[in-house]
Amino acid sequence: MPVRTGSLSLTTLGNTDICDITKDLQRLVVDSGLKSGLLTVFCPSSTSGLTTVEFEPGAVADLKRLFEELIPSGRDYAHNATWEDGNGHSHMRASLLGPSLTIPFVEKTLLLGAWQQVVYVDFDNRPRHRELVVQMVGE
Amino acid sequence: MPVRTGSLSLTTLGNTDICDITKDLQRLVVDSGLKSGLLTVFCPSSTSGLTTVEFEPGAVADLKRLFEELIPSGRDYAHNATWEDGNGHSHMRASLLGPSLTIPFVEKTLLLGAWQQVVYVDFDNRPRHRELVVQMVGE
Amino acid sequence: MPVRTGSLSLTTLGNTDICDITKDLQRLVVDSGLKSGLLTVFCPSSTSGLTTVEFEPGAVADLKRLFEELIPSGRDYAHNATWEDGNGHSHMRASLLGPSLTIPFVEKTLLLGAWQQVVYVDFDNRPRHRELVVQMVGE
Repeated sequence: MPVRTGSLSLTTLGNTDICDITKDLQRLVVDSGLKSGLLTVFCPSSTSGLTTVEFEPGAVADLKRLFEELIPSGRDYAHNATWEDGNGHSHMRASLLGPSLTIPFVEKTLLLGAWQQVVYVDFDNRPRHRELVVQMVGE
Repeated sequence: MPVRTGSLSLTTLGNTDICDITKDLQRLVVDSGLKSGLLTVFCPSSTSGLTTVEFEPGAVADLKRLFEELIPSGRDYAHNATWEDGNGHSHMRASLLGPSLTIPFVEKTLLLGAWQQVVYVDFDNRPRHRELVVQMVGE
Repeated sequence: MPVRTGSLSLTTLGNTDICDITKDLQRLVVDSGLKSGLLTVFCPSSTSGLTTVEFEPGAVADLKRLFEELIPSGRDYAHNATWEDGNGHSHMRASLLGPSLTIPFVEKTLLLGAWQQVVYVDFDNRPRHRELVVQMVGE
């Protein structure tokens, strides 16, 4: 069973920018030549994370609000006292959401729900260029 | 190394119904014919998620309370304004918990702790029939 | 494609002790003999979890504070009424963070970011000896 490793380049706005990467992942599955197996998408970053959501404007706005309420941007963080880069909240949001997501595929198709999209969430406090790791193992 | 893809059918009560699926997953491992590898269980849904917990009534009640406190059901969500289905909180809880869980197995046995059960949590605001994806890769 | 299963022994302080296990995981990748694939680290425990963070004292302190604020230790939990072991908050924190983390590796190297470390977080309310499961599938 082979391993296929690809990547996904993104330019984000930062500040909890929520980016739908579903079609990009599906294209990588097709390009891999594999028929079925596990796809793992991974953020090599400590200020961003991955999850799924119904990608419509209401739920996207709710998700941004949720992170602002659970982990506010406008308070003190010990990380900021160390580095003075002001993104202590970004690190906490990323650690809570997690950097890795694994999705099964069969017949060259990710087994997502009809109303379920994969989103990359960039919590950093400025626009960023990002390179995500996408690895598939299967047959 | 082969890939085995199965599914798990569940009827839930919704409203953060916490369902112990440990025995079902263990049975799918035995039925797969694989000896060791990774099992991924995945929710093809944007209103449910997966984690592990000690499945006893106290911890189950605590987990339901936790989600109600972090992401209350009785407030406004932009998602509800769009769809009027009243389950904006369900979507947020699902995105925070995450739709995927990966567990190693060896000797046809999931390597869970003695007091650790795998739970599917249905956050939707009504009873649902659900079909989870269970995929194993290994040897 | 072979499967390699190892383990990682840790002695922790409990009480949301945040332990950097990056070098241990990287060593297990090298020792596996595999070149590329997926590494899954799993906590066979219901009072601990895994994530990534920039492992510097400020962010580590912020992460401890975050869990204390979201899921306080000094309040009532139904789990405690059942078992009287006082670690109801530990169970909730573990369920929210999650017991599993999957990371791709290529050329015998985990594809982590430059400022990203893998951490095991022991939420139990006393020091513990722990044995984590580390499994790699690949080629």
